[in-house]
Amino acid sequence: MTDLPVRLNAAVRQFNDHLGHLPERYAPNHPRLREAVNYALLGSGKRIRPLLCHAAARALGSTGDLWLQPALGLELIHTYSLVHDDLPAMDNDAWRRGRPTAHIAFDEATAILVGDALQALAFQVLTEADSQLSTSEQQLHWVRLLSSAAGGQGMVDGQAMDCAATGGHSSLEALETMHRNKTGALIRAAVAMGAWCSEQPPADTELQALDTYGAAIGLAFQVVDDVLDATSNTETLGKDAGSDAARDKVTYVTLLGIEPARHKAAQLEREALTALQALPGDTTLLAEIAHFIVARLR
Amino acid sequence: MTDLPVRLNAAVRQFNDHLGHLPERYAPNHPRLREAVNYALLGSGKRIRPLLCHAAARALGSTGDLWLQPALGLELIHTYSLVHDDLPAMDNDAWRRGRPTAHIAFDEATAILVGDALQALAFQVLTEADSQLSTSEQQLHWVRLLSSAAGGQGMVDGQAMDCAATGGHSSLEALETMHRNKTGALIRAAVAMGAWCSEQPPADTELQALDTYGAAIGLAFQVVDDVLDATSNTETLGKDAGSDAARDKVTYVTLLGIEPARHKAAQLEREALTALQALPGDTTLLAEIAHFIVARLR
Repeated sequence: MTDLPVRLNAAVRQFNDHLGHLPERYAPNHPRLREAVNYALLGSGKRIRPLLCHAAARALGSTGDLWLQPALGLELIHTYSLVHDDLPAMDNDAWRRGRPTAHIAFDEATAILVGDALQALAFQVLTEADSQLSTSEQQLHWVRLLSSAAGGQGMVDGQAMDCAATGGHSSLEALETMHRNKTGALIRAAVAMGAWCSEQPPADTELQALDTYGAAIGLAFQVVDDVLDATSNTETLGKDAGSDAARDKVTYVTLLGIEPARHKAAQLEREALTALQALPGDTTLLAEIAHFIVARLR
Repeated sequence: MTDLPVRLNAAVRQFNDHLGHLPERYAPNHPRLREAVNYALLGSGKRIRPLLCHAAARALGSTGDLWLQPALGLELIHTYSLVHDDLPAMDNDAWRRGRPTAHIAFDEATAILVGDALQALAFQVLTEADSQLSTSEQQLHWVRLLSSAAGGQGMVDGQAMDCAATGGHSSLEALETMHRNKTGALIRAAVAMGAWCSEQPPADTELQALDTYGAAIGLAFQVVDDVLDATSNTETLGKDAGSDAARDKVTYVTLLGIEPARHKAAQLEREALTALQALPGDTTLLAEIAHFIVARLR
């Protein structure tokens, strides 16, 4: 596993600290639900979406800690989606991030409710962000971006396509559409939400450059995942090895083969880096993330 | 079944018309998911929460159609909660509003995704409300109220308590706590969101009176449901008759008996009507709703 560059590592630690010290009003009342929510949230996630939000905020000149608020909303949505995706009726995965999945460690009803509570909390934290730091307009943009990315024209659409594709056949185009929504929508929301951390609203050209970057690394992330899924075992990956292949799922590896998939990931990294040239600010963190995602293959 | 008074009936028709003509950007891409979302949304719901939002808006002097926006968010959250509550791992109900539940009519994975998409959409519609009609502050208040009512200290907490109580024993106090969150939180959010439809922010005394009203009719609604559940059959109620009793669930009827439960409902109606006296505006619609809820028993 490639190590995170120093500044990104510091941001992950800052985010995890923030996540570990949420106000009491955000914890579920019910003891078992509270325990299960903490179990899902405080695992060893890579925190890619919070990092993207942080890096995009920095690229547009936002220097403070405001990025932590939209980053929290993003990670709450991402975590809920993992818990629901793992359910028996969905991907039926027993293993996630090196531990039993939530419905195994607790039970299925609790796992459904964990996801439901996390989704509501994601929007609650965005609109209860410190009003001394963020304006109403910023908070509304965050909710708009996150809710539209998470819904039936975004993440949930991709999940529905993924479920429907199990055991079936698919084209490269269909696979890309699925991933563009299943994981890509939230990744693009992450950079756009980071862009809305600045005092000045971001320019359209800046949002477009970030979106191109986000779309490229979102796909790169999937291609890399598919290659790792096909070449690793449970111990190194922390989830069921070859689980997608075992379910006859179409992946970049089954469609392209391993070596062409590696080439595609490298090409997507270059696309992402090219898009950053249109941004005026310090894009080194965004470049480091793109590199980190693809470097997992090396 | 008692008929809705004329003005409330007109509001239900206006709301259903609004719901039936949502913009295309709110429909899921995936055809099966889209069909299932429409199936869940366009059934014969009573639209109690939209009506409460409407009536509270009128009670504080809001005269236009702005109430339709928060009402939509409320009904989307309510509908998602029904779809998830009916799942096999939760209440395992096959029948709802006179039709097969979503996971029976479609499948379990689709039902999970329907709920997930509806929850995201609830927050999306609130922050995409016509900015000519509502301010950023109003939209943010709606999201705050709805997300905190829907989450782990509100509706989902009540659901977790309800799941844990199956087959167990409980006190009247525990039952009230469960219902205060499972259905009460969203009902109280409905009147508060209606109060935020006015151009002027509502006064604290007005919010308190509405909250007292909402808490009383929320409980009344449950007591009435329990009595109807114990005395009706599937045909008149549109869901599995005696399903809670069949699962050994504690209800107001099992704890109090049928007649004392009827008395409790009537007492809660009086409490709700008394709270309305503290409001300056036209509270006749709120009074009609309180009466309608309890009149189902007559």
